[in-house]
Amino acid sequence: MQLPSSLLENAVAQFAKLPGIGKKTALRLVLHLLKQDTEDVTMFGDTIKKMRNEIKFCQRCYNISDGNICSICANSARNQQIICVVENIRDVIAIESTGQFNGTYHVLGGIISPLDGVGPEQLNIEGLITRIEKESTEEILFALNPTIQGDTTIYYIQKKIAPLGCKVTTIARGIAFGGELEYADEMTLARSITNRLPVGQYVK
Amino acid sequence: MQLPSSLLENAVAQFAKLPGIGKKTALRLVLHLLKQDTEDVTMFGDTIKKMRNEIKFCQRCYNISDGNICSICANSARNQQIICVVENIRDVIAIESTGQFNGTYHVLGGIISPLDGVGPEQLNIEGLITRIEKESTEEILFALNPTIQGDTTIYYIQKKIAPLGCKVTTIARGIAFGGELEYADEMTLARSITNRLPVGQYVK
Repeated sequence: MQLPSSLLENAVAQFAKLPGIGKKTALRLVLHLLKQDTEDVTMFGDTIKKMRNEIKFCQRCYNISDGNICSICANSARNQQIICVVENIRDVIAIESTGQFNGTYHVLGGIISPLDGVGPEQLNIEGLITRIEKESTEEILFALNPTIQGDTTIYYIQKKIAPLGCKVTTIARGIAFGGELEYADEMTLARSITNRLPVGQYVK
Repeated sequence: MQLPSSLLENAVAQFAKLPGIGKKTALRLVLHLLKQDTEDVTMFGDTIKKMRNEIKFCQRCYNISDGNICSICANSARNQQIICVVENIRDVIAIESTGQFNGTYHVLGGIISPLDGVGPEQLNIEGLITRIEKESTEEILFALNPTIQGDTTIYYIQKKIAPLGCKVTTIARGIAFGGELEYADEMTLARSITNRLPVGQYVK
């Protein structure tokens, strides 16, 4: 695809670097921006730059933040004694949007995955242990993806924090709402039977 | 979806304004940029701004250009006596990538579509007529989409330029390569029969 202008070509190349965006989509986006007012496009560019330059990570939970401490950690209405351990920021956003969790978070920044070259030392695990010791946390709730890597990470951290004596839980795994039993994989179905709940507790 | 930072929120809102990009995709793109080097993201923002601020349109054919005259119009190796009339810049790029056309272009900036409030006066038709008069053009080749609006536009322009006495052609319409006769619509099939070609001409 030969473009008639090097300015256009550069802009398309920049968009095409983004995940899931090919050269044709990039061109469509750039031609859309070309039809917008100059001020709007300047604002677009400046907002992205400002975001990258000024965004901070919470020093306590490693969540994205405008300041040194994120709005969740700074919120005294939330239960600071429960820490939900998640893989990344997207998981924080997903759990926050359920409105069901009133504790704080700890973002690991990944999960233990030797095949991808990610070991425990690359994750924010030391920060979590220091935090539990310092804040005498009551409960650690693991909300990691139900994969081998997720389970390995839980196992590793659990062994590390066992001496600290806080309660350790994980989010429930089972048949998803709207899911059908006959299409569920055996592992999930087996676990959902092993971990069966009294009906009163389920309905609560 | 509640985001933990207003900087992030603004960046996501900017991306979500682009066509075909929803809030979830926008978040994915922004989090990707957040993982890149500050210099790379600064370059991203600056490239987009520079593109919008500095890009020009060719004064002769209204194609995108780095200068006052685009590289196609300025190229003396191209046949300046043939003008291919297209709807927009994307069509120029599509035709250029075939490598089959060695003339120049004229970008209308749309097609006549009364339902969308686009009349002939909003398009670069006057510029085309002036150009044919001044340059004593030999041939006008219409490469517009085969729709009612496209045909209306061809009809309108053709009537306007008839007194100027240049040859007027349109790109061939028929069964696309790889297409199947039985799935072709009646209009296309009927036209491809009416406009049938001698086999020698087809193979040439």
